[in-house]
Amino acid sequence: MKPDSTTCTLDKALLPKTWYEIRADLPSPPPALLHPGTLQPLDEDALSQVFAPSLAKQELATQRDVEIPQPVRNLYAMWRPSPLVRARRLEALLDTPARIYFKAESASPTGSHKTNSGLAQAFFAKQDGISRITTETGGGQWGASLAYGGAQFGVEVDIFMVRVSYQQKPYRRGQMEVYGARCVPSPSPTTQAGKAILAQNPHHPGSLGVAVSEALELAMHSDNTRYCLGSVLNHVILHQTIIGQEALVQMELMDDYPDMVIGCAGGGSNFSGLAFPFLGKALREKKSTRFIAVEPLACPSLTRGTYGYDFGDVAGMTPLLKMHTLGATFTPPSFHAGGLRYHGMAPMTSHVYALGLIEATAVTQMASLEAGVQFARAEGIVPAPESCHAIRTAIDEALVCKREGKAKTILFNLSGHGHFDMQVYMDYLGGKLVDEPLDEAHLKEALGRLPGVGV
Amino acid sequence: MKPDSTTCTLDKALLPKTWYEIRADLPSPPPALLHPGTLQPLDEDALSQVFAPSLAKQELATQRDVEIPQPVRNLYAMWRPSPLVRARRLEALLDTPARIYFKAESASPTGSHKTNSGLAQAFFAKQDGISRITTETGGGQWGASLAYGGAQFGVEVDIFMVRVSYQQKPYRRGQMEVYGARCVPSPSPTTQAGKAILAQNPHHPGSLGVAVSEALELAMHSDNTRYCLGSVLNHVILHQTIIGQEALVQMELMDDYPDMVIGCAGGGSNFSGLAFPFLGKALREKKSTRFIAVEPLACPSLTRGTYGYDFGDVAGMTPLLKMHTLGATFTPPSFHAGGLRYHGMAPMTSHVYALGLIEATAVTQMASLEAGVQFARAEGIVPAPESCHAIRTAIDEALVCKREGKAKTILFNLSGHGHFDMQVYMDYLGGKLVDEPLDEAHLKEALGRLPGVGV
Repeated sequence: MKPDSTTCTLDKALLPKTWYEIRADLPSPPPALLHPGTLQPLDEDALSQVFAPSLAKQELATQRDVEIPQPVRNLYAMWRPSPLVRARRLEALLDTPARIYFKAESASPTGSHKTNSGLAQAFFAKQDGISRITTETGGGQWGASLAYGGAQFGVEVDIFMVRVSYQQKPYRRGQMEVYGARCVPSPSPTTQAGKAILAQNPHHPGSLGVAVSEALELAMHSDNTRYCLGSVLNHVILHQTIIGQEALVQMELMDDYPDMVIGCAGGGSNFSGLAFPFLGKALREKKSTRFIAVEPLACPSLTRGTYGYDFGDVAGMTPLLKMHTLGATFTPPSFHAGGLRYHGMAPMTSHVYALGLIEATAVTQMASLEAGVQFARAEGIVPAPESCHAIRTAIDEALVCKREGKAKTILFNLSGHGHFDMQVYMDYLGGKLVDEPLDEAHLKEALGRLPGVGV
Repeated sequence: MKPDSTTCTLDKALLPKTWYEIRADLPSPPPALLHPGTLQPLDEDALSQVFAPSLAKQELATQRDVEIPQPVRNLYAMWRPSPLVRARRLEALLDTPARIYFKAESASPTGSHKTNSGLAQAFFAKQDGISRITTETGGGQWGASLAYGGAQFGVEVDIFMVRVSYQQKPYRRGQMEVYGARCVPSPSPTTQAGKAILAQNPHHPGSLGVAVSEALELAMHSDNTRYCLGSVLNHVILHQTIIGQEALVQMELMDDYPDMVIGCAGGGSNFSGLAFPFLGKALREKKSTRFIAVEPLACPSLTRGTYGYDFGDVAGMTPLLKMHTLGATFTPPSFHAGGLRYHGMAPMTSHVYALGLIEATAVTQMASLEAGVQFARAEGIVPAPESCHAIRTAIDEALVCKREGKAKTILFNLSGHGHFDMQVYMDYLGGKLVDEPLDEAHLKEALGRLPGVGV
């Protein structure tokens, strides 16, 4: 389909048939996931104790193209291919010679890119004969997406939602319940991990690391139940590559190609989902594209963390993952982008960062919300606070282009809308927000408690 | 563009170039708007004192095709043509031979069909040299849409939001403020109309009728300011016909045609916006299509109201409109579909109802929410409480098809999503909602206070 000059909505017939596995194009493989007791690499069988077997297999997949099952493609077709939009009004506002494009993952039924993996994980669980899946959620985008997947494929869904988000964003819980899922605030008294934390502090605000421990414990102690993760792992990034797969075709239809690909990065899946298909092409065709992961200055795992083996959760129940990490016991200061409040960065994203294939930068909450309001007024979509981080950097790069008089092409991922995050905008516009600084002593302590496992 | 069998997204090149004015195809014209003092029909000049002159002109337009200005079309192209979706999963769930389609107006940047008119009204105001526009909003969909329009075209926007909605849906106010508009709860102490009502009852919950009075007063007492209305008037319905214009083409591409066209009806613009282009075709080609306006049993202007001249607001500041009305002083019992809490029905919609060209039905809040949850689990989109009314009737008609073994084609308007309405779903799922009955004595009293102006 011939796009107009502003929005490219691909013909549904061009919906990609495969996800993209970047292992196939990397100069070296990423370090293995290790068993925390034996420190031996985990194989498919071991991973299948925790995850649906099909997902365990995908976690270790090495072939470049992984087929998207037809039932998942049919559901993707509800809103995918998602629009690729040239942000002409934002360009005009900035008076920049740069061409700014964004991929509108906000168009998904649950409001973010998370749906891409939520549907896939629920499908594979059902196909593997699993009757219940458990997960954690921060801002609620992931919980809502898996709940939607569960409703579609007939799998029960139990969700542990970080307590502070559960209180800040009550309507996300409502959304999960409309889809038929159960959602409890974490830490909860329903698990040993939750009980232990509540015993120390009955008012513990929760964290993604705690919620992961609870969801994992419930899965491992229940019949025919498996755990699902919304980011960090390879199979999640794999599902998210649908974003970049589409964008590659759409940029070609727009007769343009990005000089920079930008995404916000919490666990790493939305950034990598957009970036990896472009990175693979850059590696194969020796293109010099810049890839910029944008993280919050208050939770800067790539820019301030250590690259080493760490747990994915607080209780130390996950496999050991080699990643950029602030330490599993790190709790960031208060800020509203719940999806970016994770202590670690996806092993695959950390690996390509270590290889020097991508860049990272960190921005403040205030600066990102300023960019978000500017974007909303220009382009109409109120972005999720997470996505505002990507917008901030896209605008900054466009302003560099203006200063240098260069007409570069910038592509960023609008990972979701902010309909469930209006309180943060109201606080921001009402002058009630300040940037809370990182607690350096706490970071130092958390980094000191890494398990100390070598490569 | 060839659609797949489930979702039809039109090529942007096929975005309609014109809105559709149904006057051109009706057997008789609708009764005129009258000056409340002289009882004479209002002409363009008189209407231009209240509305932007271009909109006053549209209000009286008689030609079938009204050109959509290119700047408005460019903005429409952000999300339009909106998807036409075959609700296959809902059909399967109901086990019905009916084919159910919905037009996903939920895809708009502000989340509802209101954006179609919000952008248009702000554009025409700016073109007419007007620097500020005022309006009322109930559920907030309209206020957010006009705020977005104001941000796009550089017009100041002042919004009076029904107090009970302002409190129930704080995040809608946040959305308006992100777009740069001002939003105050109504009744407010900033107008004479608001002051008078607050003097009687400082805790008055507000109503659309009161908010209209306030917005109108502010517009009429300020320089270079005009009033905008989000439904009811002809020019608003005109802008909403983009929905039906697209659906006509999309149904043809789907190789199908509706036996029934269904929409929820508050002021009448989303129902009419979808229905009128099909109704015009039915009139021209003598097709026997059913058109069903669905209203809440708690605010049933078509099914329980009188067809006569009434004011559009509580203070009696608007022109007199001949419409189905419950009386301008009628206040419905508590229910959450803020967009359906209006005492009157659009004069044009009332006119085609009086001509016997459309049907009307009324459903309860509980029954509509039950349908909404069923729809969300099947089709992924959490519908606005208003839209749930249309879904209820679509499901009921599909179940009739099942009983009768008839494979009819049902098309309904999904006028918006429910992301700002999760509290009502949480209350519904938590067993906290009941249907409050209509106060018959209050209705009788309100109907007794109609101005009593003959045709």
